[in-house]
Order: sequence, then C-alpha cells, then structure tokens
Amino acid sequence: MNKIYTGVFPIAPTPFRDDGTIDGESQKRVLDCMIDQGVDGICILANYSEQFLLSDEERTELLDLCMDHVSSRVPIIATCSHFSTGIAAARAKEAAERGAAMIMMMPPYHGALLKAGPQGIMEHFTAVAEAVDVPIMVQDAPLSGVDLSIDLMVRMAMEISGVSYFKIETPQTADKLRALITAGGKAIAGPFDGEESITLMADLNAGATGTMPSALLPDRIKPVLAHHAAGDSTAAETQYTTILPLINFENRQCGLRACKAVMMEGGVITSEHVRHPLPPLPPETRAQLLELARPLDLVAMRWGR
Amino acid sequence: MNKIYTGVFPIAPTPFRDDGTIDGESQKRVLDCMIDQGVDGICILANYSEQFLLSDEERTELLDLCMDHVSSRVPIIATCSHFSTGIAAARAKEAAERGAAMIMMMPPYHGALLKAGPQGIMEHFTAVAEAVDVPIMVQDAPLSGVDLSIDLMVRMAMEISGVSYFKIETPQTADKLRALITAGGKAIAGPFDGEESITLMADLNAGATGTMPSALLPDRIKPVLAHHAAGDSTAAETQYTTILPLINFENRQCGLRACKAVMMEGGVITSEHVRHPLPPLPPETRAQLLELARPLDLVAMRWGR
Repeated sequence: MNKIYTGVFPIAPTPFRDDGTIDGESQKRVLDCMIDQGVDGICILANYSEQFLLSDEERTELLDLCMDHVSSRVPIIATCSHFSTGIAAARAKEAAERGAAMIMMMPPYHGALLKAGPQGIMEHFTAVAEAVDVPIMVQDAPLSGVDLSIDLMVRMAMEISGVSYFKIETPQTADKLRALITAGGKAIAGPFDGEESITLMADLNAGATGTMPSALLPDRIKPVLAHHAAGDSTAAETQYTTILPLINFENRQCGLRACKAVMMEGGVITSEHVRHPLPPLPPETRAQLLELARPLDLVAMRWGR
Repeated sequence: MNKIYTGVFPIAPTPFRDDGTIDGESQKRVLDCMIDQGVDGICILANYSEQFLLSDEERTELLDLCMDHVSSRVPIIATCSHFSTGIAAARAKEAAERGAAMIMMMPPYHGALLKAGPQGIMEHFTAVAEAVDVPIMVQDAPLSGVDLSIDLMVRMAMEISGVSYFKIETPQTADKLRALITAGGKAIAGPFDGEESITLMADLNAGATGTMPSALLPDRIKPVLAHHAAGDSTAAETQYTTILPLINFENRQCGLRACKAVMMEGGVITSEHVRHPLPPLPPETRAQLLELARPLDLVAMRWGR
C-alpha cells in the first residue's frame, strides 16, 4: 500500500476481430507496445477499453489474459465499476487476487437516473475497499452522471482506508484538483487527470502527479510530465503544444476509436472494430487523424511494422 | 407471432435473502402468487426486478428458474437490454430459446451520456429481432436517457419484423400512446403503459391495451382493464380511484421496494432485501405503505399466510 504511483498510466484498448470477438493476440501486442513506450503503468477494463460493451465472462477473460501477459512488468490498474456494491466488490477482489496494483471505479450509477447519494457512495467504496488490500482510484467522470463534491471526496480519502487516488475528468479539472489537494492533504496520494490528457498542462500546474490518457501517444505525453517534474515548465509546455492538436482531435472527434486506428496503422492490432452501437470512424475523420499523427512519429503507429 | 397479448403483465420482483443472495424458493412463490391473481402474463428481469444489480450469471439462473417454474402457465416477457448490440441479441436468443413469449428492451444506453442515435437504435433492434422469432416490446423509459420520437418508433414497428409492442413511460404517456397508435396503425400490436400503472386511466382512454405494473396489486388493477374493455368507464374510474392512493405512494415514495414490503407481509417472500446501493425502505414509509394497502385486502399481502 505504501508505494506512490505517479506518471503516465494509459488505458489499454480492447481489440476485437472484425466479427466482434475478442482478439487475444492483438491484446498482448497492445500491452507490449505500451510497455515499450515506457509507460508507468497500464489501466485495463476502463471505459476506453469498451468495458460497457463486454459480458462478465469477457471481463474475466481479459483480466486473466492481461495479468498473465504483463506479468508484473508494469503495475496494472483494473476497473470494477458496477451499480451493485456486491458485484463491484467481487470484481475488485478478483482483480486484486490476480495481481492488480490498483482498483479504479466510478461511484455507482445506472442509466441516466439511478445513482446513490453521498452515504450510499461512501458505503459502496467502503465495501470495495474492504474486499481488497490495494489502493483505489476514484473516477470523477461525467459518464456516471454523479457529482462528486470536494467535501465528499476528501471524506472518502480520510475515512476509507485505501481510497487515495482520484482521477478528475469533470469540467475545470485544474480547479477541482487544486481544491482536492488543498483540502485532502496527504490523504490524496495520487491526484490524476484523465480524458486523453486534454487538460494536462493546467492539471500539472495544479498539482496533478499522474495522467490517464488513451494508449494513442504515451511516448509523447511522458516527456511533458518529465519536463514538468524537473521544473522546466517551458519545455513541458512546448512539448505539450506539439501534441495538443492530435489530442484535441482525439478527444473531440474520435474518442476511443483514435487509438485503435493508429494501432491498426502501426500493425499492433489486426482490426479496429468497435462494438455496435458505437459506429466506426468515418473515413474522412480517420484520414485527418492519421495526418495529425504522422509527423509525431508515434511508436503505436510503427511498432508492428 | 400472431397472438396479440393484452391485459396486465406485472413485473416479478427478484427476492434476495438478507445476505443479498438470490432466494430461489421465494422467487417461485412470487410467480405462483402472481399467477393466482389471474395476471395475463409476467415480466421478468426488468428494472423492477433489479436487473441492473444482477451479474450475467444470475440473470441466466433467474431466467432458467422462472421459465421452469412458470412452465407455460402464463406467457413470460423477458428483458435483454445491454449497451452492446451483440450481448443484447445473445440475451434475447437465450430467453426465446427458453420459452419466453416476448422480449422487452430499452434502446442502447450506458450511464448518463452514452446512447445510440436513431440509426444505431434501428440497427440494435434489428439485430435483436433477427435473433428471435417472438415479438419485441420497446421500452420508452426515462432511465435510458434516450428520447424515442413517434417517428422513430413507427419506423421501428413498420420496418423491423417483430417490433410490435411499445411500453410508454415518458411524461404525457397518453398523448404519446395516442400519437403512436394513430401514426402506427396495425403495426402497433400492443400499446402498453408501465410505471406501476400510475397513468392507467388516461392511457386506457388513449387506446392502451395493456399495462405493466409492479406485482404489488395486479388483482386490483385487473378489474380496471376489465371494466374499461366492457365499455363501463365509470366502473373502471371508480375502481381506479380506490387503488390510486396506494399506486401513487408506491410510485412516488417507494419504487420497487413497495411490492417487496407487501409480499414480505403476505408471507410470499422471506426477506425484502434490496441490493446496495438501493437503500431499504425507511420504517415510517413502510408503515404508511402498509396502512394504505391493508384496506384493499391484497392477495400479495395474505397469499402466504
């Protein structure tokens, strides 16, 4: 529990074949390609892994495959979100037993309307924390439809042993991170951002110690954090400005399909299929994405060639 | 495919033990208690069955148990909603193969933000319809966060073979049902309402031919439809006025916990546990519910005594 995780923890996409079945061999190459870029860790079964399009059985299959293949080369963060507290705790336990270094989860929600109140959220995270002995990262994500206040997050960090990482993806991330760090102090072991690192510079300036982007360009995001940590914010800003057009296009135009398209070009995966009802990337959008990516000489775009 | 289903199709609650595990024996009694009330059919694995708090394995266990136990005594509607089109189709196929008379589903959604557009919804329902040869009921429910327009629902009914039942639960149900029936004509085999039958009188007057309440008081809802079908709208209105205070209290104060509390009182189930993060019914609310229910001499409140 005592190691503090910092740095770039990108999300591994889940590769499917053209028929929609899981492509295990491509999944292994995705993980190797990410590790070869010097990532500080990998997040699996996240929203950008299309977790909401997987059956329970497929979740377990992917957990086993990823844990076996990574085999402790880098720490793995596994998600366990489910509206049922009991099922979320069982998922967390399974992941921790398989060797996950951290559990990530959203507060409980279902659909547009069902969510727990502050007490229910506290109980939900407490039950999950009691099921594992690894740290837990709270995902403050708009997808859940749940507003997590600074007060509640600080209470979670102070009162629930294990809850110590926070990934903030709501509007005005930097302000929220700053307020969280100020109010939570040492209880906030890891203030992270996410959402493709689209808010990274502001968040680093606010005190973020880690970021969870997609697996599109971790090789190019890593130097931003390195320069910033070394106190050279000008170099960090310069590097970030170089990659921001691609990140912006990913974030606003492509979503999780961007990483798959680039990894397909790079021979990492054999199909960029996303599961219906997610639509495939339109050809024009895909072409513009690759045009923005090409000058950056991304590892993911040449790794398997 | 040719039988037209009409009448009262209540949702079977999923009984848990106090420890949160599924109580199969209580589930059987729930089904028997409902059948003894002369229901026209039963819906399983619905939102009021806490479907969003079940694992995939538990879904299958419940499907098997309910199909075996009901054993064709009444038609069963089984839900199959999942954001993944492939998983929804597989669930529908499994239910139809086990003997479900109808499949019910919401348009694809996940969380507060993810939903398909009209084309994606068409494709989603088409894929499910192609996987089964039983009719499909479209659930127009606020929980999904998806707006289903009259135009889209009529297109679904006209263009997708099997899509022929519509359960409307959005605001102003009666207007929407009337518009749907007018625009869809014969393609709308079953215009239903739901939501505890809280809008039943207006919906019957608009042309609804079926209702999907909870399993709290189907014995008292059935006469409303019978009187209305016989052309005696005064008797229907009188009967409905008698039960409306209880339905109103269920709908606005209790949700799915009302049926469980009454069935607990009636010895139908051995625990009224709902899965966390749903909170148990506060004692004051439970007492008021039973006070409203008692004078109605509900079957569910005495069946197992």
